[in-house]
Amino acid sequence: MLSERIQRLSGNLIREILAFTQREGVISFAGGLPAMEVMPDLDLDQVPPQLRQYGTTEGEPELRARIAEGLNRLGRACSPDQVLITSGSQQGIDLVSKLFIDPGTPVLVETPTYLAAVQSFHLFGARFFALPLSPSGIDQDDLHARLTAHRPAFAYLIPTFQNPSGYCYSGPTRIEVARQLDAAGVPLVEDEPYRELRYESVECTPICALLASAPWIYLGSFSKTGMPGLRIGYVAASPDLYPLLVRLKQAADLHSNRPAQWWASRFLGSPGYSAHLQRLRDRYRSRRDVMAAALARHLSGLARWEIPAGGLFFWVQLNRVLDTRVLLKKALEHDIAFMPGEPFFPDEDRPRGFLRLNFSHAGDDAIERGIATLAQIIRGFPG
Amino acid sequence: MLSERIQRLSGNLIREILAFTQREGVISFAGGLPAMEVMPDLDLDQVPPQLRQYGTTEGEPELRARIAEGLNRLGRACSPDQVLITSGSQQGIDLVSKLFIDPGTPVLVETPTYLAAVQSFHLFGARFFALPLSPSGIDQDDLHARLTAHRPAFAYLIPTFQNPSGYCYSGPTRIEVARQLDAAGVPLVEDEPYRELRYESVECTPICALLASAPWIYLGSFSKTGMPGLRIGYVAASPDLYPLLVRLKQAADLHSNRPAQWWASRFLGSPGYSAHLQRLRDRYRSRRDVMAAALARHLSGLARWEIPAGGLFFWVQLNRVLDTRVLLKKALEHDIAFMPGEPFFPDEDRPRGFLRLNFSHAGDDAIERGIATLAQIIRGFPG
Repeated sequence: MLSERIQRLSGNLIREILAFTQREGVISFAGGLPAMEVMPDLDLDQVPPQLRQYGTTEGEPELRARIAEGLNRLGRACSPDQVLITSGSQQGIDLVSKLFIDPGTPVLVETPTYLAAVQSFHLFGARFFALPLSPSGIDQDDLHARLTAHRPAFAYLIPTFQNPSGYCYSGPTRIEVARQLDAAGVPLVEDEPYRELRYESVECTPICALLASAPWIYLGSFSKTGMPGLRIGYVAASPDLYPLLVRLKQAADLHSNRPAQWWASRFLGSPGYSAHLQRLRDRYRSRRDVMAAALARHLSGLARWEIPAGGLFFWVQLNRVLDTRVLLKKALEHDIAFMPGEPFFPDEDRPRGFLRLNFSHAGDDAIERGIATLAQIIRGFPG
Repeated sequence: MLSERIQRLSGNLIREILAFTQREGVISFAGGLPAMEVMPDLDLDQVPPQLRQYGTTEGEPELRARIAEGLNRLGRACSPDQVLITSGSQQGIDLVSKLFIDPGTPVLVETPTYLAAVQSFHLFGARFFALPLSPSGIDQDDLHARLTAHRPAFAYLIPTFQNPSGYCYSGPTRIEVARQLDAAGVPLVEDEPYRELRYESVECTPICALLASAPWIYLGSFSKTGMPGLRIGYVAASPDLYPLLVRLKQAADLHSNRPAQWWASRFLGSPGYSAHLQRLRDRYRSRRDVMAAALARHLSGLARWEIPAGGLFFWVQLNRVLDTRVLLKKALEHDIAFMPGEPFFPDEDRPRGFLRLNFSHAGDDAIERGIATLAQIIRGFPG
């Protein structure tokens, strides 16, 4: 009586962890929650009254124009007519699923990759072909083999400060990925919520800016630089795909919240925007360094990790191969939360012993205490 | 390379008409736009700063509690744990599609019915079985035959001031529909955006309040009583379906805009809420009466219609059978917009000669002028 996709519906784990982390006294390294103390003010008292009425599906013109400007500055030629405002970047993923995926559709993804994207693609019936990630990106021979053998409907990549790994594709890798997608004519879906959270000087031209002919969809967010509670993100797309995304958006929720679009447009255009980003980067870089020090102090000999050049996460591989979902249960008993690594792997055969640690939300003292406790729990873990 | 559902993607007509109606000097009877002059103030300067952070998928607890209270007052026992806040009522329809519909899934709908619901169900591949509507609702023998022959996944009904017809199911029809759905065990999806826009005293207990055992989903909106630009609606559901809807919502956009939820909660709980509804009803009743008088003056002998007891629309059947999509083109040349009837019929074989006229948005003078012009256009229409 229900759709067959309901058998593929997941998502309880994350909601359970996030619900738990709202309890008093819990140190959470689980979610990707931005720090409240560096969020901009929520200044909505000047919202024009005409925004109470229905709006257009595409979104508010001023906001679309500012987003297009930003993409042009990154080298991705894009007119405002190619920008669609979404109800959070997650909605962009839902629209991508609807656009491309039927049961059995081959989809190329990184492994590990963003678990909420995997869940959405899986819900619609995607068959995953996974490209193992290294700190400089995906392997070109792997990519070539996968593109040739499976003719995927699209490649979903998070090249800049990837979730969960924190890895950032190197410049040459970006160029080579673009070349291969062009040659295969396979659409790129490039997800970039973390682009502005950059703590080191690294090359990070969007791959869609390097494409010559392949169709592309670029997903952007205001949740990390602005505030997530407004649920405002955007999709930009090549002209062949854009009108289809607009019609899918219309069927999904008509259009996005208008006061939030007004806020995002003012935020992007405000004279303090650059200074705000700098404040955000300084704060998160410092948090990252606090966590790096705590990891070195407490987890050396127990695990390996890279220091991310941006984003919100450390991706930690334990030396012992254990189910981190079971480890999480133990940690929750000690009021520590993290994200188990298993759900980030799209393959059935999920590597064990990985965990994702967020460094933006907990304070400096909590990071030190939390990592110390976590190390004790790992040491005492049976098996 | 695209999903096969993209072949079934529709929606250009409505967006084109709505884009046209934003032009200066156009008299629009097309959309279901509420009148700006009776909208509540958009008072967002007190939004608590913690609402900038991510929220829960289910929605803000105070708002969910107020909505549950409202349903309890209507006779539908419902706890706040059965209420999910959506990004507009349209998102409820998207979630219903995802919950139930695979290509070929039989779905029971009224004919005519809400075209954006038809478009969403169609996108997911629904096979429609249509129940002809009369001013007192659907026919019981029809319903019995359809339930028995097709075993639909659900019945989608708009019993109160239906869109597009304006019809309101009689009390006995409501009871009998509930009895039959219980007997067949077929879920009810009850869509009620117009419930509060009631201009006469009519019986309108929600059908879901009369069910004994069938699963149910109730779709509600703040777009007609509050303001549509916030995109806030809700879904309430029986306990078997509710957790699935929450997980589908999580995959769709994580959660809805939090300042808008805060606003809706204050609006529902404000001492002026009842007086606001009364003002809205008085204004729209008066507009309805202006349109009824204009129709009687100009369209008598050309068409038939009922006077709706609530909602936002007259459903007009021309005496001549003509394609109202072609008539619309002619009307647009005279700066008059309306909604052609054809897309409201879910069947392939679409009856011609119907049009939907909205009476909430245009002013009194514009209604009189617009209907007079429309009558001239119909008289002069070739064929």
